[in-house]
Amino acid sequence: MSGDKKKMVEAITPIDADFAQWYTDICLKAELVDYSSVKGFTILRPYGQAIWENITRILDGMLKESGHENVAMPMLIPESLLQKEKDHVEGFAPEVAWVTRGGSEELEEPMCIRPTSETLFCDHFSNVLHSWRQLPLLYNQWCSVVRWEKTTRPFLRTREFWWQEGHTIHETSEEAMDETLYILECYADLCEKFLMMPLLKGQKTESEKFAGAEATFAIEAMMHDGKALQAGTTHYFGDGFSKAFDVTFTGRDNSLQHPFETSWGVSTRLIGGIIMTHGDNEGLILPPAIAPVQVIIVPVAQHKEGVLDAAYALKTRLAEFARVKVDDSDNSPGWKFSEWEMRGVPIRLEIGPKDIEKGQCVLVRRDNREKSFVPLADLDKAIPEMLDSLAAALYEKADQNLKNRTASCKTMDEIIKTAEASTGYIRAMWCGEEACEDAMKEQAGLSSRCIPFEQEKVGDVCPVCGKPAKHMVVWGKAY
Amino acid sequence: MSGDKKKMVEAITPIDADFAQWYTDICLKAELVDYSSVKGFTILRPYGQAIWENITRILDGMLKESGHENVAMPMLIPESLLQKEKDHVEGFAPEVAWVTRGGSEELEEPMCIRPTSETLFCDHFSNVLHSWRQLPLLYNQWCSVVRWEKTTRPFLRTREFWWQEGHTIHETSEEAMDETLYILECYADLCEKFLMMPLLKGQKTESEKFAGAEATFAIEAMMHDGKALQAGTTHYFGDGFSKAFDVTFTGRDNSLQHPFETSWGVSTRLIGGIIMTHGDNEGLILPPAIAPVQVIIVPVAQHKEGVLDAAYALKTRLAEFARVKVDDSDNSPGWKFSEWEMRGVPIRLEIGPKDIEKGQCVLVRRDNREKSFVPLADLDKAIPEMLDSLAAALYEKADQNLKNRTASCKTMDEIIKTAEASTGYIRAMWCGEEACEDAMKEQAGLSSRCIPFEQEKVGDVCPVCGKPAKHMVVWGKAY
Repeated sequence: MSGDKKKMVEAITPIDADFAQWYTDICLKAELVDYSSVKGFTILRPYGQAIWENITRILDGMLKESGHENVAMPMLIPESLLQKEKDHVEGFAPEVAWVTRGGSEELEEPMCIRPTSETLFCDHFSNVLHSWRQLPLLYNQWCSVVRWEKTTRPFLRTREFWWQEGHTIHETSEEAMDETLYILECYADLCEKFLMMPLLKGQKTESEKFAGAEATFAIEAMMHDGKALQAGTTHYFGDGFSKAFDVTFTGRDNSLQHPFETSWGVSTRLIGGIIMTHGDNEGLILPPAIAPVQVIIVPVAQHKEGVLDAAYALKTRLAEFARVKVDDSDNSPGWKFSEWEMRGVPIRLEIGPKDIEKGQCVLVRRDNREKSFVPLADLDKAIPEMLDSLAAALYEKADQNLKNRTASCKTMDEIIKTAEASTGYIRAMWCGEEACEDAMKEQAGLSSRCIPFEQEKVGDVCPVCGKPAKHMVVWGKAY
Repeated sequence: MSGDKKKMVEAITPIDADFAQWYTDICLKAELVDYSSVKGFTILRPYGQAIWENITRILDGMLKESGHENVAMPMLIPESLLQKEKDHVEGFAPEVAWVTRGGSEELEEPMCIRPTSETLFCDHFSNVLHSWRQLPLLYNQWCSVVRWEKTTRPFLRTREFWWQEGHTIHETSEEAMDETLYILECYADLCEKFLMMPLLKGQKTESEKFAGAEATFAIEAMMHDGKALQAGTTHYFGDGFSKAFDVTFTGRDNSLQHPFETSWGVSTRLIGGIIMTHGDNEGLILPPAIAPVQVIIVPVAQHKEGVLDAAYALKTRLAEFARVKVDDSDNSPGWKFSEWEMRGVPIRLEIGPKDIEKGQCVLVRRDNREKSFVPLADLDKAIPEMLDSLAAALYEKADQNLKNRTASCKTMDEIIKTAEASTGYIRAMWCGEEACEDAMKEQAGLSSRCIPFEQEKVGDVCPVCGKPAKHMVVWGKAY
């Protein structure tokens, strides 16, 4: 958004030449993030942060609508608290950052920066919960967490990331399971209806579930290159954490009981998903629902009398129903076109002296770059329609990619050949044994994405061991 | 908000018996915060968090309206970065938390959890700033910071607190100074028009300014007990940080220049200010603009036919223009009255069978507990009016306290006697020497709150040293 004349819209790496480099180019050149002097930590720049705020506003609304309340927990966890649930600590201890000094004194007990906050929530629940009448407690927090990853990439894997983490407790296991699945549907709505990302929904296998959970559910999105992105997860804990943290309540029958628990989260990773689902060789393409700027007005021949005034007047008018901005910098129109295409703005509106004479303007759709002349009087209708149809087209294109890259296979031979030929999802039967899951990784380089809710019998036996199959699993490569 | 029947609305300590205990009682019993297992860290519970979200929404709107953009910086600062500006590191190093291990390995360089982020912003500015055309950069972030305080109190002083920190860079020192004063006015608007807290505005003395700043400005609010609360500060840095961090840009004349910088913040401390400004013996009193619930509907004889339906119908109607909630729990009306008074809800609406018959309801104002019978048809007008007049009355009452507790003194004798007689502000002249400021602390137990913008010559000489006075200073005791 700078007016720096010297800056040029630099070419980005072609998407099909080097997808990883194309991705990094977009992250940096669309000014979503910057690297920081803190290794493995990125900065969300204004444009990236604005996208994240739009995502959070949508999801926060959904959560509040369904009775969830926000809270704010400490960012530090004492070592003893982290250790209370043994699977949890085993999963997270190797990747946390430890605070060992406060001011000038060594701490008696080291504390880690939260990698996730189950332990803190349980500790709080054990203080405030007394009676079944208080249940359910439906809590959520928006914050950042730290995980000491070895290799990092903007949005996808960074040592700090921003997210929401929901933590709820319920009177019965059924209610907790309902919540776990309900939130998965909220996440699916967010992705499908607002981020325009088609999904696979299902349950994670034992080896892929969250440290300490009884069951983990996930939404998996497919990226342009055929790799999967785990876009959100919800976890059902049973009463394991409640017991470990001694969270109890007096039940309807006056007996002391342990509540059943869930947790769930989505993160700034979703922005990585948006980039890799919709972007193209010109840069980012943003779904209208979360685009910080939905319509960029580019005045043509802006030095001519009346052009800038007309642009500002249009901005005021369109601002009633869209997020709109005028680029009145002294860059050339061509430069502005490239710049805002790079940044993924859904609609470009061009207006020049001739347009003003004719009472019209030019609209250019970012996805297909279709150009149309639209009477100014029709914009109130034309722009919302165009935003909607662009959104639908984004979903459609991504869904086509998902379908094109999904195969069903019966034998290991088929699986290996299919995986070698192209990256995507492979649907295959599975006996349920971890050994066969491991073998799939070794032989075909594929991990289980999930056991989809929508099951289909694509065979009878597990392609690895030949034993009777229990589930259809979707296998793939993942970010 | 729990439906736990066993819980009783417990009495809180009378406000004038033990103000500190009264304050703590409200924080806990109105369920604003909870203590955590992490020493010195508190939890924002749903009600406290909802108040904070309402405050952030108002201020975030003001900041965006004036062109400020949100970003998100890393939460960690490498030791070498913290040390680049020497006054800054001296001020903050003694009170930061140090991360020394990541995963299983010792870090080569320790990092602290941000106590404030000037260093990170400067580091980023030095990466992204090139030309004067980019200026000003008006950045802000909402986050939490950690300062390793020895003694803590909810909202007022905790090892972690939530705040916004603005960091801006400008082409000229005048523009930076304008920004510093502009933001102070935004903070004053927030406090005076939304939180209904009357203020003193002015500049901090040298000894009270921010570590690394050239000038610090503050808004100071007076609490019920006469002590001052520094409610927000804005800092003008000149080009000191720019030089320390080598932030440069090519100026209009093509020379390499250092930008001028500001930073500014308000925090969850404001919630402490709201409690101590407006609360009374019945509990919290919330200014309507930030009350999570503005109208609590209490059905009377709710088991009788039609009562709950009428309450829900009212809720739907009032929700068009107010934040409203029905308490349909099975607690008694008397219990509900106390509970919602404790929580500071501005208006209670009672509705029972007789009211329904007469087409009316009872409204009770939280501040003066005035009761009025209002025809249901008039509520659309009566409720907004009552919220407005309650807000005005809160301000008026606090302003009266501020005036009653402000004295002007000429001699040390007068100052000491006045300070002994009652806590409040003392306006007195000052020569500008730190030694006299120190003497005021030793002899009268008072610190300089600020050099108010509105100066008045309350004498000719410094009451400590007798030398000619430079400024009128407001002295007081502070939280």
